[in-house]
Amino acid sequence: MYLDFYRAFGISVDLALEAHEIVRGETGKEIPGVIVDREKYENSSVTIVKVVEESAEQLIGKPRGNYITIEAPAIRDNNRIAQQEVTEVLAEKLAALIKLPENANILLVGLGNWQATPDALGPRVIDHSMVTRHLYKYAPEELQGGMRSVSAIAPGVLGITGIETAEIIKGVVEKIQPELLIVIDSLAAGSTERIATTIQIADTGISPGSGIGNKRAGINKESMGVDVIAIGVPTVVHAAVIAQTAIDQFLEQLKANPVLYQIYRNLRPDFTQEVINNVLKPFAGNLMVTPKEIDTLILNTSKIVAGGISMAIHPSISSEDYEMYLN
Amino acid sequence: MYLDFYRAFGISVDLALEAHEIVRGETGKEIPGVIVDREKYENSSVTIVKVVEESAEQLIGKPRGNYITIEAPAIRDNNRIAQQEVTEVLAEKLAALIKLPENANILLVGLGNWQATPDALGPRVIDHSMVTRHLYKYAPEELQGGMRSVSAIAPGVLGITGIETAEIIKGVVEKIQPELLIVIDSLAAGSTERIATTIQIADTGISPGSGIGNKRAGINKESMGVDVIAIGVPTVVHAAVIAQTAIDQFLEQLKANPVLYQIYRNLRPDFTQEVINNVLKPFAGNLMVTPKEIDTLILNTSKIVAGGISMAIHPSISSEDYEMYLN
Amino acid sequence: MYLDFYRAFGISVDLALEAHEIVRGETGKEIPGVIVDREKYENSSVTIVKVVEESAEQLIGKPRGNYITIEAPAIRDNNRIAQQEVTEVLAEKLAALIKLPENANILLVGLGNWQATPDALGPRVIDHSMVTRHLYKYAPEELQGGMRSVSAIAPGVLGITGIETAEIIKGVVEKIQPELLIVIDSLAAGSTERIATTIQIADTGISPGSGIGNKRAGINKESMGVDVIAIGVPTVVHAAVIAQTAIDQFLEQLKANPVLYQIYRNLRPDFTQEVINNVLKPFAGNLMVTPKEIDTLILNTSKIVAGGISMAIHPSISSEDYEMYLN
Amino acid sequence: MYLDFYRAFGISVDLALEAHEIVRGETGKEIPGVIVDREKYENSSVTIVKVVEESAEQLIGKPRGNYITIEAPAIRDNNRIAQQEVTEVLAEKLAALIKLPENANILLVGLGNWQATPDALGPRVIDHSMVTRHLYKYAPEELQGGMRSVSAIAPGVLGITGIETAEIIKGVVEKIQPELLIVIDSLAAGSTERIATTIQIADTGISPGSGIGNKRAGINKESMGVDVIAIGVPTVVHAAVIAQTAIDQFLEQLKANPVLYQIYRNLRPDFTQEVINNVLKPFAGNLMVTPKEIDTLILNTSKIVAGGISMAIHPSISSEDYEMYLN
Repeated sequence: MYLDFYRAFGISVDLALEAHEIVRGETGKEIPGVIVDREKYENSSVTIVKVVEESAEQLIGKPRGNYITIEAPAIRDNNRIAQQEVTEVLAEKLAALIKLPENANILLVGLGNWQATPDALGPRVIDHSMVTRHLYKYAPEELQGGMRSVSAIAPGVLGITGIETAEIIKGVVEKIQPELLIVIDSLAAGSTERIATTIQIADTGISPGSGIGNKRAGINKESMGVDVIAIGVPTVVHAAVIAQTAIDQFLEQLKANPVLYQIYRNLRPDFTQEVINNVLKPFAGNLMVTPKEIDTLILNTSKIVAGGISMAIHPSISSEDYEMYLN
Repeated sequence: MYLDFYRAFGISVDLALEAHEIVRGETGKEIPGVIVDREKYENSSVTIVKVVEESAEQLIGKPRGNYITIEAPAIRDNNRIAQQEVTEVLAEKLAALIKLPENANILLVGLGNWQATPDALGPRVIDHSMVTRHLYKYAPEELQGGMRSVSAIAPGVLGITGIETAEIIKGVVEKIQPELLIVIDSLAAGSTERIATTIQIADTGISPGSGIGNKRAGINKESMGVDVIAIGVPTVVHAAVIAQTAIDQFLEQLKANPVLYQIYRNLRPDFTQEVINNVLKPFAGNLMVTPKEIDTLILNTSKIVAGGISMAIHPSISSEDYEMYLN
Repeated sequence: MYLDFYRAFGISVDLALEAHEIVRGETGKEIPGVIVDREKYENSSVTIVKVVEESAEQLIGKPRGNYITIEAPAIRDNNRIAQQEVTEVLAEKLAALIKLPENANILLVGLGNWQATPDALGPRVIDHSMVTRHLYKYAPEELQGGMRSVSAIAPGVLGITGIETAEIIKGVVEKIQPELLIVIDSLAAGSTERIATTIQIADTGISPGSGIGNKRAGINKESMGVDVIAIGVPTVVHAAVIAQTAIDQFLEQLKANPVLYQIYRNLRPDFTQEVINNVLKPFAGNLMVTPKEIDTLILNTSKIVAGGISMAIHPSISSEDYEMYLN
Repeated sequence: MYLDFYRAFGISVDLALEAHEIVRGETGKEIPGVIVDREKYENSSVTIVKVVEESAEQLIGKPRGNYITIEAPAIRDNNRIAQQEVTEVLAEKLAALIKLPENANILLVGLGNWQATPDALGPRVIDHSMVTRHLYKYAPEELQGGMRSVSAIAPGVLGITGIETAEIIKGVVEKIQPELLIVIDSLAAGSTERIATTIQIADTGISPGSGIGNKRAGINKESMGVDVIAIGVPTVVHAAVIAQTAIDQFLEQLKANPVLYQIYRNLRPDFTQEVINNVLKPFAGNLMVTPKEIDTLILNTSKIVAGGISMAIHPSISSEDYEMYLN
């Protein structure tokens, strides 16, 4: 599937890993200026896509930076061993990106709409996070050693607040002056297999137009004035992607036939788009595909993400404590 | 799209109107033993499919009885005039099916899982219903004249209770001996346009295997021993249907070409099914397509259904009172 | 009951009407510098307490300004006529306080914790509010004439965010520059009769230490730099107040007896406080008295408040539209 | 405080331990026909009140049987070691009461109203329970050895269903024929210290009129035809009890004075009751005292109860697995 398709439907390719695969699929060769590393764990694998050159930035539609993707199909099956492993891998990868003194202030931001299940991941992570900033001021005796000053907000979405999410965050950032933002968001994936099984960490923050809620303004170092790490989990696939994939895979099988291939090549490029728009009306880009059990998947994934973040930002939270966050 | 397709994916065609259209589309002619009537209102239209002969029963996969479908795209846009009209049309059509004395007992049953948004319509309708049975016994002074004895349960789903929903309902029916069951359920539609815009009333109850939650046992006069009216609202489309429709509509355009048509005709019948299964793995039949705003749509539709039921079963609830239920 | 009592338990007297009554009860005479007006409606009554002099400010513990209290016991009984009347009275009183051009920007702020039922009034009002600010920018065609630019946030509470609520609000205020803040909060009352039957409008904003959540910093013109109107509804009575009232009313009956009265007079002033502390341990000032049906009461009251606000701030929303907000 | 007081306000003494203390306090001596045992653990203590004779039954208002009370103040502080210990103690005590073959069927019943926070403990325990009955029929491959057939319902409350809770349960019991009912309910305690720190296990089931929701019919072996074990956790104290305790403790201090004592003795017995009724109007027996953090306390306690039940009824669930239920 081509990047043009996503653009036509106003859909972002949220995972750098998928954007990279799409572009490689189109061109059939490695993309200059992108470095890809892979690591294998017992129940999960990690792919690190480094976009290092400006040319690559434009090609795959992602700003320069590190995109770490943890894939672990087993966490969807409520496999606790796998969930624990992923929590620890997330903590480790995240900690490696955080170069801050122990007394640094960190602000967690849970993006998304808590009233719309697949978009509620960010607010749910906030619910499960370990917030300490107020204790420094009002109850220092409750602080163990090795805990950083952490605050957390769930700023809501434009349709409910009437305010650009980036504006709310920027206002809070200017007041409390954190050294780092960690922003959590629900993502859309290109394949249903990724729902609740993939976690992306990006040290580039959130680009304009990405995520389920289509953030209009970016939340990144440029707009916020501080480092921004984004953590995203796919919770949906756009229905348009499902429809396009079905047609593509159908045609793939037929391409062996030279006559058919010729017909297919002669199609107007927007022909498929018209078909899909017709199937999805009146919702178009707003139709999401989710599994029936999405409520449970969001709950479990939000605990993993909250646990991984807490272990990464509070040096005194050992892996013995992670269970508390896993649940 | 053919009924075979639905069977292959273990998906039911919940709306009799759609089943009728599919069969007519396949055969290209009227189905003997089925009578179809239509009525037009300001903001809505009503189609009554009467399955009157046993042969028709098998052809369209629906037991003999009356299937009244109210279609009103405007209710999805939060158009209050349209919502009010649909509430009244629902009340009128439902009242016409209820032939009971004023002192009859009616049990409302909200099917579905209140923890899974698109499946939560039934329990939400129960939340907005006007229950009176206990007042007859404990607080008769609170009863206005012309209110029937109404009770209501939301029995949950098999995965949460471990008990067939039909068994729970049957147990309660045997205890409280109602003269009528009204069963409310979320349905799957064949087209996204129907989500939260269509209401089906069926005097045949619920057939085995229908609805989002795939009820294994039927909830109908045969199993319950009393009349059962089912009210259903589509809240999802199966992702498999979206994928199949996309492929179908794509091919439809190509059929003009005789070579292509020939190739298509030569495909193994299960070829498309394999493609779709591959697109939807690992969720297969459990992937649902819903609009982003499904939480709001469920809330609004559940108020319309609860309002319509209350007006139909309590003769003293006039249309001046419907606003109470609409909101 | 004396103001000293409240101070001893760290409890604020949230309603100016009650503070005024307590002080008058203590001194037995009118308080200089306070003007009290009363209005009577069909189902409700309005008392306006104007604190006009600095001396009065200190006496009753409320900054100079207007405190409008609407009392309507009938709204608790789900009496829709009364709810409609109160919505309109609230709209009228609120509108009279708002002296802004039609193109003014207004920010609604729902204080409190949406996860703690009696403290959730503010966030619930936000859920039912009519937000338009984003439409001016992105969808002006959806705006009817006569709608002001309104945005809304529910900033959470210190224990969940780690950030003083006033800091979050101030950050957003500096970004979006509204001409007016309307802040909605759950209050504690001195009497259970007030729960969900009383609404206070104060053009002084929120004082430090008031409300269920004990805001540490004030949210008022001084701290925010713009006018702040506070709307509060009592949802709880502190258990300490219940205990103290029980003892007081018990003793009241005994005072006729001179011997007893002498004994009572000889008690150490902190004797009662010790008794009450003992009864309420280990929760002390954190024990709240609420009726069983508090969830429903919060829902209904939040609709009334949201409806009244919408009618007051959007000049084009007529009383014919209020039903939309009542429900 | 006297049992008469509770009767006057229509309040039940839900904990046998408290009923026992009240009667002993009144009479000043041991109650014949009641045997009391105590056990001490690291973070908790257990008191077993055995009502063995009919005379005792009437004295303390509890049917003959075993009432096991686990007290652990530390679980309220989110102390995980204590929570784990209490889960295990609960499992052990409960297992000792269950004399059933491994293939027995058990039905869990979560009493109470999920829309009213302090009454929602029962439904929340059902949410966290491990239900297996359907797996025996539809997915036996998912069953580990040593798991009993468990089903679960949350039947709602009379005001919402219009049906006596006991009728719904009885209807389901007759259908699925379990060998044992385990019924979970929110209780009212006589002291705020017990809120979310005390668990009562009773092999007598639920008596009529007990619990927050005032069940009108009993749920016990007599009404259900099978053994019933009730598990209850206090989540509220009636406001009337707080008021009475405050007056009592106040007077207690004054009793040393003989004149006062005489006056007090001469009071009409219903004098205090009038005072309290006056303080609590218009809610009377429906006013509950709960801590602000009741939502969190209910969540934590429901996990402990669900974990303890699962360990007790599924012999193969070891204490290594309890963490899953604790969270």
